[in-house]
Amino acid sequence: MLIVMDAAATAEDIERVVGTVQALGLQAHPIPGAQRTAIGITGNRGAVDRTAFENLPGVTEVIPVSAPYKLVSREAKRENTVVSIGGVPVGGERLAIVGGPCAVESERQAIEIGKSVREAGATLYRGGAYKPRTSPYSFQGLGVEGLKILARVRAETGLPIITEVLDTETVDVVAEHADCLQVGARNMQNFSLLKRLGRIRKPVLLKRGMAATIEELLLSAEYLLAEGNYEVVLCERGVRTFADHTRNTLDLSAVPYVQRISHLPILVDPSHGTGKRAKVLPLSRAAVAVGADGLLIEVHNEPEHALSDGPQALLPEMFRELVAEMRRLAPVVGRTA
Amino acid sequence: MLIVMDAAATAEDIERVVGTVQALGLQAHPIPGAQRTAIGITGNRGAVDRTAFENLPGVTEVIPVSAPYKLVSREAKRENTVVSIGGVPVGGERLAIVGGPCAVESERQAIEIGKSVREAGATLYRGGAYKPRTSPYSFQGLGVEGLKILARVRAETGLPIITEVLDTETVDVVAEHADCLQVGARNMQNFSLLKRLGRIRKPVLLKRGMAATIEELLLSAEYLLAEGNYEVVLCERGVRTFADHTRNTLDLSAVPYVQRISHLPILVDPSHGTGKRAKVLPLSRAAVAVGADGLLIEVHNEPEHALSDGPQALLPEMFRELVAEMRRLAPVVGRTA
Amino acid sequence: MLIVMDAAATAEDIERVVGTVQALGLQAHPIPGAQRTAIGITGNRGAVDRTAFENLPGVTEVIPVSAPYKLVSREAKRENTVVSIGGVPVGGERLAIVGGPCAVESERQAIEIGKSVREAGATLYRGGAYKPRTSPYSFQGLGVEGLKILARVRAETGLPIITEVLDTETVDVVAEHADCLQVGARNMQNFSLLKRLGRIRKPVLLKRGMAATIEELLLSAEYLLAEGNYEVVLCERGVRTFADHTRNTLDLSAVPYVQRISHLPILVDPSHGTGKRAKVLPLSRAAVAVGADGLLIEVHNEPEHALSDGPQALLPEMFRELVAEMRRLAPVVGRTA
Amino acid sequence: MLIVMDAAATAEDIERVVGTVQALGLQAHPIPGAQRTAIGITGNRGAVDRTAFENLPGVTEVIPVSAPYKLVSREAKRENTVVSIGGVPVGGERLAIVGGPCAVESERQAIEIGKSVREAGATLYRGGAYKPRTSPYSFQGLGVEGLKILARVRAETGLPIITEVLDTETVDVVAEHADCLQVGARNMQNFSLLKRLGRIRKPVLLKRGMAATIEELLLSAEYLLAEGNYEVVLCERGVRTFADHTRNTLDLSAVPYVQRISHLPILVDPSHGTGKRAKVLPLSRAAVAVGADGLLIEVHNEPEHALSDGPQALLPEMFRELVAEMRRLAPVVGRTA
Repeated sequence: MLIVMDAAATAEDIERVVGTVQALGLQAHPIPGAQRTAIGITGNRGAVDRTAFENLPGVTEVIPVSAPYKLVSREAKRENTVVSIGGVPVGGERLAIVGGPCAVESERQAIEIGKSVREAGATLYRGGAYKPRTSPYSFQGLGVEGLKILARVRAETGLPIITEVLDTETVDVVAEHADCLQVGARNMQNFSLLKRLGRIRKPVLLKRGMAATIEELLLSAEYLLAEGNYEVVLCERGVRTFADHTRNTLDLSAVPYVQRISHLPILVDPSHGTGKRAKVLPLSRAAVAVGADGLLIEVHNEPEHALSDGPQALLPEMFRELVAEMRRLAPVVGRTA
Repeated sequence: MLIVMDAAATAEDIERVVGTVQALGLQAHPIPGAQRTAIGITGNRGAVDRTAFENLPGVTEVIPVSAPYKLVSREAKRENTVVSIGGVPVGGERLAIVGGPCAVESERQAIEIGKSVREAGATLYRGGAYKPRTSPYSFQGLGVEGLKILARVRAETGLPIITEVLDTETVDVVAEHADCLQVGARNMQNFSLLKRLGRIRKPVLLKRGMAATIEELLLSAEYLLAEGNYEVVLCERGVRTFADHTRNTLDLSAVPYVQRISHLPILVDPSHGTGKRAKVLPLSRAAVAVGADGLLIEVHNEPEHALSDGPQALLPEMFRELVAEMRRLAPVVGRTA
Repeated sequence: MLIVMDAAATAEDIERVVGTVQALGLQAHPIPGAQRTAIGITGNRGAVDRTAFENLPGVTEVIPVSAPYKLVSREAKRENTVVSIGGVPVGGERLAIVGGPCAVESERQAIEIGKSVREAGATLYRGGAYKPRTSPYSFQGLGVEGLKILARVRAETGLPIITEVLDTETVDVVAEHADCLQVGARNMQNFSLLKRLGRIRKPVLLKRGMAATIEELLLSAEYLLAEGNYEVVLCERGVRTFADHTRNTLDLSAVPYVQRISHLPILVDPSHGTGKRAKVLPLSRAAVAVGADGLLIEVHNEPEHALSDGPQALLPEMFRELVAEMRRLAPVVGRTA
Repeated sequence: MLIVMDAAATAEDIERVVGTVQALGLQAHPIPGAQRTAIGITGNRGAVDRTAFENLPGVTEVIPVSAPYKLVSREAKRENTVVSIGGVPVGGERLAIVGGPCAVESERQAIEIGKSVREAGATLYRGGAYKPRTSPYSFQGLGVEGLKILARVRAETGLPIITEVLDTETVDVVAEHADCLQVGARNMQNFSLLKRLGRIRKPVLLKRGMAATIEELLLSAEYLLAEGNYEVVLCERGVRTFADHTRNTLDLSAVPYVQRISHLPILVDPSHGTGKRAKVLPLSRAAVAVGADGLLIEVHNEPEHALSDGPQALLPEMFRELVAEMRRLAPVVGRTA
């Protein structure tokens, strides 16, 4: 249930509603907007009696939320959420262009790629220290050593760092080194991890699962918000279908659909979404054109030697060209890059 | 198998190769390009002995075609094919923007929509006289009467006409009235229909089946070319997946993939691809950005009363806005609209 | 709409209802059951006024059919339909076991396989004279010559013949030679073909399309019944998914689902459903156990030389073993084989 | 890589090979079979030089494992693995029939269902104390209290307990109370959890992910074996497709496919696989007929009041009938129940 406060409601009014919610054994989540504040109610198993709230001062409307998600919905917050990742806004007018290698392999490799993507125009850096790998015999990432390298990449380039977190045990150490924690597609419904990430104070980048509906993606985001972390960025990265000409089928309709029903920003990852280097540029254009808030692009200086996901990584010069194209394209859709 | 002739090969050289092919009981398909001629060989069940050709004068290369398609491939013809639909080129620099109702319902409706899409900037008109409907109790189209109405739309608006053909019996009557015959997704592997359409001299618009791989789409196009009809336009219109927020999942990666391996033009149909009016504009932007040769857009003057597929049709003013947006976007990807 | 007559309704009562339906410009389809007769109404675009029927003598109930299919539904006919294919009942207690080659390649091959499957216990023979092939360069079947061979197989073995029909032009010649006409997965929504087959008086075997929902399968069957052909057998043959260990994903839950909502019999084709010889036997067991009315099995005497679909065909001795297993299994599920 | 020892190899021979493997910085995994021992090698990133092993005494064969999984493969171990869950063998001649509620709701409910499934013939009990729920607002399970209830169910009924584990933090407490730890579909590629479970000494039931290929399922199992836990039972529970008549599409071909390439037992879960009560019995028959090593069935005494997954749970009397049917069916496929 969602309680919408009057634009003229006082802090006292809001406090009174919060108190009433808590007195019922439920949680209250005040969500301040530009015009008005909404208060989400969670913790109820069944229906909540709306009459308990309708007559409190400052309450305009009580919305029984029929959609299974509440806090992530546009009904809860009408304005777009802009998430700040290390000072770089994601979800605003400027496209977030995130570049970097799939996996951190060495300090030299990571920094070299970092410098090259910054020069090309990336505003954020991503690289994996912990890698989820289908096979136990594949390279699993450098772990803490990789995190330290990422911190040095930030020091050298000034780019905030996004990196994947695989489990609850490493949430703290990853949060210590990174500016944004990525939840991979395979973990989109790892609810223990989501709950834990809901209690940190760093942004989370949540990727859509390979067979996840948009409703399920939003409900996974809801886990984060319900625990108190409102700094959530979504990411479409392709779903699994019968189509075999790309590794995944990039579902770009997810972008306008999410933007209509949720206030959260959404990026597109055309590198994993296609799995093919030659398709990254055209699908990046499509992603920006469809309205995505930014791109997640894999870049490697020697893709043929990459320890993971080589065939989809762009070379630095290809990435440079990509950013240049996005700069020409962005203004047409009311953005900058 | 494909025989590539030297740029300096004479007409006599080409004729000699064709004669040798035919002497083996096979069919030869000379495909003249800007630089050189290639000769496709079809009709062989197993491997063809390449030595029979390698030493003929004017032959540069004999390519055993490993891909199952031949005539539709870039190896057979390096330059993009530009298909002329009633004088309007599809596949060249200018985007083909096709607008019109799903089904022709009356002369008044059809002409009114025709005028409005022409004024908005459409270059081609589409409307269904024969409708493939999931249920036998749904409106099946006006048939020949619908074809006559379409001819009047062309007379009134000057827009060439694309309309669907459902079976071999009506190929002649549809070809008589229309400028381009559309094969719908459900008929993509109706091979009898494809063979019959391969023998007419009108362009064919071939839509991807709901569960068709790109290889299957190209092989269906190959049926048309193998019978002698080289005027083929492909169309991505979404595939069927578990995702339920759109009616189909529009697979935009199909566009650059097709363009790399085939010389045929490819359009995108975001109306059927999403099934939702509000998603047509953003996905149209994405389609043009990814490199599509044009768009197929459903337009209706009273969508809420449309006898079929209402909820995805644009109102005339929305279509106007869409064309205006495409005109701003096209130059960024080296096109005009 | 469906009009259910009283068990005591007279022939006159039924006639009166039929006349009333026709007077409204609609078609009436009396469906006699063991206990009572139901009368389906088709031809209406919108709602039909039920009051026109409710008060006629002998009418028990008027059911506004909410499901989009009518005549195929259990509401229209409560008893299972048993289709007679050349005198062999399909849909009754005895399992229909259909064996034969994918394609008829020669008289000798076809008859040899025919004798071997009959001896093994098959009750019906299938073989393709017209083959739908993904590539125009693949073997397309022997055509009329193949049909004549099939007729000789029946003469030699006594087994009724099922064979595929690809288009409206060949419906008559196929119907002349075969006992049952098969509509392949790719033609499941070839509505012109369905309408034409609805007007013949031979049974039709309708295979589920690769991306067809059960509702769509039933609506395609409805096309046949709506035109007057009630002799329809359905067939589950696998759908297309991301799973790559089999050629298709056999959806056995379709069987009990269809049997609950429709009176039509349904077979399972584990040969196409898996595309792998070693999986045909276990999935045949599963199909019979789930309640299928029979099996469609590809058999070839020299699968490695088969001109199409070799790797999934069983050798005659494997087919013999399969039938023997089904005979042991059938009684457990209340069947015979 | 896999080293196959001679049937006559001594313990000393085996030790020598293990030592050689470890000297290369790799891990050796001796896998004793009835006839011979195989030694899996893991830990290598690239190819391992086979000549280092081929000439050691007792070595018969060195198999460069091309399939990405090693320890789970039939090449590593020819005989079926029989996993003992609290003394009940899974993977042998007798079908494992696992019954119980989706979620433990109260001691009374859990024990009542436990007694009823034991009387009906179940050999194992399952019930969830920790529930992975799509929505943060759904019932998440009773947690440790639920585990204690499960231990009491075992004490009362004698049935060993299978229950789901959601994260690494709760592995120890779940292992303390349960006889087998279940990894749910959403966690199939939660590699941190898999690694942790590979180091306990309790059996693990690993469910196939909603969009997982069989290769991915086996590679997830490989994570468990590579860490030293060989007591792994797989479970097919349906995959996500476009088909909407069941909640998931149960892919029964997975069973014979897994059994051919792996020695691990595999169960089928028709409750989640169909999501519909009326489909559980027919699909259970199909699962046993296809060769599954057992069934996982949801049972609830008051399904309409179940806090989760109600519509698919069987009532106790339906479960009794199901076991009775399996007892009639099992002998036909060489099993007992």
